[in-house]
Amino acid sequence: MQLSTRNLLKGRIKTIKSDTVSSEVVMDIGGPEICALITTGSVNRMGLKEGDEVVAMVKATSVMIMKE
Amino acid sequence: MQLSTRNLLKGRIKTIKSDTVSSEVVMDIGGPEICALITTGSVNRMGLKEGDEVVAMVKATSVMIMKE
Amino acid sequence: MQLSTRNLLKGRIKTIKSDTVSSEVVMDIGGPEICALITTGSVNRMGLKEGDEVVAMVKATSVMIMKE
Amino acid sequence: MQLSTRNLLKGRIKTIKSDTVSSEVVMDIGGPEICALITTGSVNRMGLKEGDEVVAMVKATSVMIMKE
Amino acid sequence: MQLSTRNLLKGRIKTIKSDTVSSEVVMDIGGPEICALITTGSVNRMGLKEGDEVVAMVKATSVMIMKE
Amino acid sequence: MQLSTRNLLKGRIKTIKSDTVSSEVVMDIGGPEICALITTGSVNRMGLKEGDEVVAMVKATSVMIMKE
Repeated sequence: MQLSTRNLLKGRIKTIKSDTVSSEVVMDIGGPEICALITTGSVNRMGLKEGDEVVAMVKATSVMIMKE
Repeated sequence: MQLSTRNLLKGRIKTIKSDTVSSEVVMDIGGPEICALITTGSVNRMGLKEGDEVVAMVKATSVMIMKE
Repeated sequence: MQLSTRNLLKGRIKTIKSDTVSSEVVMDIGGPEICALITTGSVNRMGLKEGDEVVAMVKATSVMIMKE
Repeated sequence: MQLSTRNLLKGRIKTIKSDTVSSEVVMDIGGPEICALITTGSVNRMGLKEGDEVVAMVKATSVMIMKE
Repeated sequence: MQLSTRNLLKGRIKTIKSDTVSSEVVMDIGGPEICALITTGSVNRMGLKEGDEVVAMVKATSVMIMKE
Repeated sequence: MQLSTRNLLKGRIKTIKSDTVSSEVVMDIGGPEICALITTGSVNRMGLKEGDEVVAMVKATSVMIMKE
């Protein structure tokens, strides 16, 4: 299975916070953290829970750059 | 200066590939790579070049999750 | 500090409405309003409140165009 | 016709820069500028040209906030 | 009225689930389903309800591709 | 393999148009068309070509709604 999504970052779920509609999932990707806002429907469908090994996916068009 | 953007990943620019309108910037964030598609206007305005230390920024609503 | 994000619109926060996970922040940018959906975690971390002077940020790839 | 897209900013096209696939459209929205990256197919289909009165559209989930 | 948004998919609202800030709207587009996460403010402003005929809109830069 | 991405639309590639950095991929999803703007790097890495059976993927936060 191939994805056009360029950015695939392996990590482990640290916390999940949910409303009825939206959930915030924070992942440790070996140092920095990554936070995703996804639907609670997806959290339940995937059975996501703290400690799960997952991959954070980000499309290249969604990535911005900051330079000090 | 504070940003609502939750995901800030420090890295170094590996490659920049540009058309007139769009540019693809690949960054090493200490292991995995991150690829950004930004406007060439921004690359020129910021004077981005290979080797620059930068921060990749991603809004939480743009992050998806995959579970094997 | 430079950002690749092309669209930076100065404004003042009019209202903030929050759930546990998501918050809706409406800003007056000198005439029209701008509405942002960000994580409540960011609202709290940044200590955002009505009347604050802020900048609304939008990546060029997120902007669409309508013509009557 | 109603849109769920919360942010509708009236403006006038200042410049259009195009590659085969992507186009950068800069609009004056009465002071600040707004830059959109859309497909060149859309520019041609809509017959967009400098001086056109248009509306820049942005979904609330795409708007970030910066506070000095 | 013309839109630069390339993807316009006609459908009918199946379900709406709402928090104070976010709503999940599931639409049947003649076979597959499409799920949108929009602000509850937009749901109320548009008076969206189950059975409504609507169009799901997606910008080309938001579409990814998977190949088995 | 599970994805949080809610919208998965099966289709077949009709056309691919490429610049150095960006590519426009139009897919037939059994009636309506879906257009994706992805990096040319992904097109080449995935070996995408006209006639390929693929799945168009869209995050729920990227879907807007229009009502006549």
